[in-house]
Amino acid sequence: MASTANQIIHCKAAVSWEAGKPLVIEEVVVAPPQAMEVRIKILYTALCHTDVYFWEAKGQSPLFPRIFGHEAGGIVESVGEGVTELKPGDHVLPIFTGECRACAHCKSEQSNMCELLRINTERGVMIEDGKSRFSIKGQPIYHFLGTSTFSEYTVVHSGCVAKINPSAPLDTVFVLSCGFCTGFGATVNVAKPPKGSTVAVFGLGAVGLAVSIPYLSLIFSLSDSCYAHVHDYDNNPHYVASMRTRLLKGQAKKFGVTEFVNPKDHNKPVQEVLVEMTNGGVDRSIECTGNVQAMISAFESVHDVYIYFWLGVAVLVGVPSKDDVFKTHPLNFLTERTLKGTFYGNFKPRTDIPLVVEKYMNKEIELEKFITHSVPFSEINTAFDLMLKGEGIRCLIRMKE
Amino acid sequence: MASTANQIIHCKAAVSWEAGKPLVIEEVVVAPPQAMEVRIKILYTALCHTDVYFWEAKGQSPLFPRIFGHEAGGIVESVGEGVTELKPGDHVLPIFTGECRACAHCKSEQSNMCELLRINTERGVMIEDGKSRFSIKGQPIYHFLGTSTFSEYTVVHSGCVAKINPSAPLDTVFVLSCGFCTGFGATVNVAKPPKGSTVAVFGLGAVGLAVSIPYLSLIFSLSDSCYAHVHDYDNNPHYVASMRTRLLKGQAKKFGVTEFVNPKDHNKPVQEVLVEMTNGGVDRSIECTGNVQAMISAFESVHDVYIYFWLGVAVLVGVPSKDDVFKTHPLNFLTERTLKGTFYGNFKPRTDIPLVVEKYMNKEIELEKFITHSVPFSEINTAFDLMLKGEGIRCLIRMKE
Repeated sequence: MASTANQIIHCKAAVSWEAGKPLVIEEVVVAPPQAMEVRIKILYTALCHTDVYFWEAKGQSPLFPRIFGHEAGGIVESVGEGVTELKPGDHVLPIFTGECRACAHCKSEQSNMCELLRINTERGVMIEDGKSRFSIKGQPIYHFLGTSTFSEYTVVHSGCVAKINPSAPLDTVFVLSCGFCTGFGATVNVAKPPKGSTVAVFGLGAVGLAVSIPYLSLIFSLSDSCYAHVHDYDNNPHYVASMRTRLLKGQAKKFGVTEFVNPKDHNKPVQEVLVEMTNGGVDRSIECTGNVQAMISAFESVHDVYIYFWLGVAVLVGVPSKDDVFKTHPLNFLTERTLKGTFYGNFKPRTDIPLVVEKYMNKEIELEKFITHSVPFSEINTAFDLMLKGEGIRCLIRMKE
Repeated sequence: MASTANQIIHCKAAVSWEAGKPLVIEEVVVAPPQAMEVRIKILYTALCHTDVYFWEAKGQSPLFPRIFGHEAGGIVESVGEGVTELKPGDHVLPIFTGECRACAHCKSEQSNMCELLRINTERGVMIEDGKSRFSIKGQPIYHFLGTSTFSEYTVVHSGCVAKINPSAPLDTVFVLSCGFCTGFGATVNVAKPPKGSTVAVFGLGAVGLAVSIPYLSLIFSLSDSCYAHVHDYDNNPHYVASMRTRLLKGQAKKFGVTEFVNPKDHNKPVQEVLVEMTNGGVDRSIECTGNVQAMISAFESVHDVYIYFWLGVAVLVGVPSKDDVFKTHPLNFLTERTLKGTFYGNFKPRTDIPLVVEKYMNKEIELEKFITHSVPFSEINTAFDLMLKGEGIRCLIRMKE
């Protein structure tokens, strides 16, 4: 096949013309990558709640028409000027936040908040020239998170691309580009539960479920979809629990879960329930819903050092609304509980994600179970329906029909 | 001199007969130490705010008559049955919280909350037999914090005694038994500021000032005694500040302080002032007042990882009132700030305090500057007056006139 490098590409993309309205598969023009950019042929993508949030455009400035999508896997089609670490044919995951490797953040071991390429939900254009690489009959179509993976071809800054093992199945490892790593990293990089400890996870989306991968866990959410599962690392299912979800009920064991707690089954704050169930509180809790009440519950369900001989640590992952107020008694901190937050599981996109792919290749983590549905690209709106109904975890969208 | 072991001792003690009333020097009888206890000849002691808090008895159940005092240095006079690690003549610091070395907390590296001997402010008797070792004409006098150092002789559980280098001057290292280590440990064990970082400390008591020992610091308090000092580790005094205190003004440099901030000089929340002064926030903040508003300010004055390339960490040391509510926007956590609390600077009393004494002996820390006043035991009420007026830091009380 003749190279398409330096040429415009005509391909299909799912365009969101208007907030909350079904996407429309259109033929779009994708411009060649400019300096430090790469053009990627997307093979597999999926819908994440963040796409839905900005597609609904209830809580932020609408920016339409736009091509959403940020969980995906693909192959580099061509690279722009100055790109030396990627070449056509490389297998890659586009990432919604970047790593320039030149700024102080990238040079720091403690930060993944690259000054140049950190997540920017407002920007709909490329950094290089402030323009979009997508158009339909000359009309620019906005980018989303610098990735816009709901397109057969997309253009991404090279600093937002993780080059991965070409043997890795892209239809599976694509989940590492967002939700999975956010939850997994919150556990292994931030909460760091000691062996044998109990972990409470609030939220049963892909993020919350990814938390339970390295450590069998206690999980629940306080949103409308109230699920909770309880487990301890040593696989002793000694906790009481209940559960109401359709899908997950049958799949609980896949996620290291034996039991669930539904806060609605109790007439007291769920943190009190958890403290009683665990004789004092869990060792770690990880909040993956963004609900401020769940954040408070998560923090107050970790034990203090008066009861257990190691510190209780709560980690906030979910993004709160802008007027939320976190409230707790300060003595909860004085008794040596720790509260911290994390972004993308503290992973550096280019440096760390290829290593997480290797963990998958070495069978240290399982990813298949996150992919509960699969549709061809032409049926992308089905993925929206499933997410809005709270069904499934990830719906694989196959670009090749 | 004949041994007094196994005999009762008649000696002077400063007895608090009634809440808020001056102490009275009385002749008390001190019983011999029972199993696992030691009797200590106190040489030097001092008043800490915790003594005053329980002496005033405004916020908790009164327990009188009682012998207060928990910052002290002395020499073991005799030991009870089963005590093998201490012998008469050992130089020691009695500590208000203990380390049994047998419980899970003591065996854990992460906890200093010994199950058997952790601080208990309510108990006025010895653990061994539930009785007091002090009496006046047969009337028991209650202990305080298991130490009761406002007495020429006191009885302490051997697990609450740090055996120190006998060359260390007891009239100086006694400050390590409470306030100094609480602040110093909050910094070196918990906040752990990276080299070159800025540290904000709220509160200019002994605890707050001890924070500035290892790291030149930014200090202020939001209590009535509003002081603040600002500094950075690299000794570049580029911060604006003001200060109002009498004593500390002249002594600022002794504590690594060049500049101070008084929140009352500003018409906006002091955290906003600090964020402006430091171009985004300090790297570490340590709250040493117990005022819940200061806790919130301390947390909100550390930078987020969006601005700096290492994580902002706030540490709560001061003890809040029981109805206080800590409130903040949860996004302050999501942007990778950490909030944690500490007790006694996370030091294990018997294991770690002798090592801190060695740091003093090696001139790694200075302690003399904390001792701003000195009175003979007969004038112990002067120490209360000084503390209530907010004058000085520590008033050395010399048991030998």
